[in-house]
Amino acid sequence: MRQKEFTRSYTMTAADCGPESVMTPQFLAAMVIEVATLHANQLGVGYDRLMLDGMTWVLSRLSLDMTRWPGINEVFTVTTWIEGVNRHFSERNFEICTADGEVLGYARSVWMGIRVRERSGGDLSLLESLRDVVSEKRCPVPPVPRLRAMPDDAVSTGYTFTYCDCDFNRHVNTVRYIELLLNRGSLDFYDTCQVSRLDIAFMHEARCGEEVTVEVAAEDNDSVWQCAVKHGDTVLTRAMIQFRKHIFNV
Amino acid sequence: MRQKEFTRSYTMTAADCGPESVMTPQFLAAMVIEVATLHANQLGVGYDRLMLDGMTWVLSRLSLDMTRWPGINEVFTVTTWIEGVNRHFSERNFEICTADGEVLGYARSVWMGIRVRERSGGDLSLLESLRDVVSEKRCPVPPVPRLRAMPDDAVSTGYTFTYCDCDFNRHVNTVRYIELLLNRGSLDFYDTCQVSRLDIAFMHEARCGEEVTVEVAAEDNDSVWQCAVKHGDTVLTRAMIQFRKHIFNV
Repeated sequence: MRQKEFTRSYTMTAADCGPESVMTPQFLAAMVIEVATLHANQLGVGYDRLMLDGMTWVLSRLSLDMTRWPGINEVFTVTTWIEGVNRHFSERNFEICTADGEVLGYARSVWMGIRVRERSGGDLSLLESLRDVVSEKRCPVPPVPRLRAMPDDAVSTGYTFTYCDCDFNRHVNTVRYIELLLNRGSLDFYDTCQVSRLDIAFMHEARCGEEVTVEVAAEDNDSVWQCAVKHGDTVLTRAMIQFRKHIFNV
Repeated sequence: MRQKEFTRSYTMTAADCGPESVMTPQFLAAMVIEVATLHANQLGVGYDRLMLDGMTWVLSRLSLDMTRWPGINEVFTVTTWIEGVNRHFSERNFEICTADGEVLGYARSVWMGIRVRERSGGDLSLLESLRDVVSEKRCPVPPVPRLRAMPDDAVSTGYTFTYCDCDFNRHVNTVRYIELLLNRGSLDFYDTCQVSRLDIAFMHEARCGEEVTVEVAAEDNDSVWQCAVKHGDTVLTRAMIQFRKHIFNV
């Protein structure tokens, strides 16, 4: 049963909402990764299959683009499909809808297989078997843009990665990078600025205990943040976060 | 349809597993809170019902007691039921099982309603309507113990709560307290010591931006940690974490 599209339904519980009582970008990132995993398992290309060849899936790029974030007790669905595959990458998209079919937003992701021992890119020939499940479904939001080098006036902050920042791959998890960047804003900031789009690209893995610098350059009256996480001179992650104005009444 | 017992089934995805490739305590805490929320909604005593009276649910105490943590791609169920209710508290238990019915562990929780404006305990008279859904199902693990004051030789570390540490209640989330405590151990520590039980009690709320101290006293050859999170002299949270020896081969 190899379905081109795979859908899961969720209820947005209060405890999983952020201070503005709606879904957070980091929660959506976790959902997107979960639904991708379940679909990959169903297609026979999940983590357990890759591990047979000594490989594991890692996320290379992720874009979240939301018109509206669901609120407390709202039921939402996440539908995923494969846009393209080759021996090195799998491109997978997501549509987030209400139970009534209102489109809340989209996500795009690019995955690669790496060899667990060597931590280098692996040959995903087995993905060629996926060509027949590539879907024609449209994802109307732009792909992950080229993320620029940081401007000189970026604000830099230190952080040391902890045990709970790391996942089964024994490296820092996508969700933690997103939180690390969002944490550069205050509660007051998010009561007037809401994330409309978040693009993140992973260049190098980070490990537990590593000391990094988090750089953020706010542009255009805080409507765009250019971001990077660096370990010494090595750029681990680049990101761009776009905000829209809103007013959250406490 | 007021069911005394409410069950949800989940697949433990790789990305939600910790560095030892099994479910983490913080993930279980989030699941337990989610299942409690869904059951409360079904019983008509969810957050939206309490908000009509200007109240919100807060977790007062939580115990996680696991014989075995599920691993990658394992299907597990969380069953919840109410053990007792009065006008001030609701006691809710959880059984975590495999798809085959193997019991993996239990959780206990104590919830209270607080008035959103005054941040003080509210009158949960509406809970009296729940007496007929109190279940006789047994929870064979001990209740949350009395958590002791910290010994003088505790190791103290500073931390400042961030935006992503806070939830819809605009205070620090249960999951974050658990992570804050677990982060006092290293990756190497957890490769040889696995959490067998975690008890946590919440005395006072913490807010975004608050600077706190995290105190941990390791006892009995690192088999038990006594923990506290303090804001000045005010104890926000006390906890006890019990570990069993295991060997995780990287």
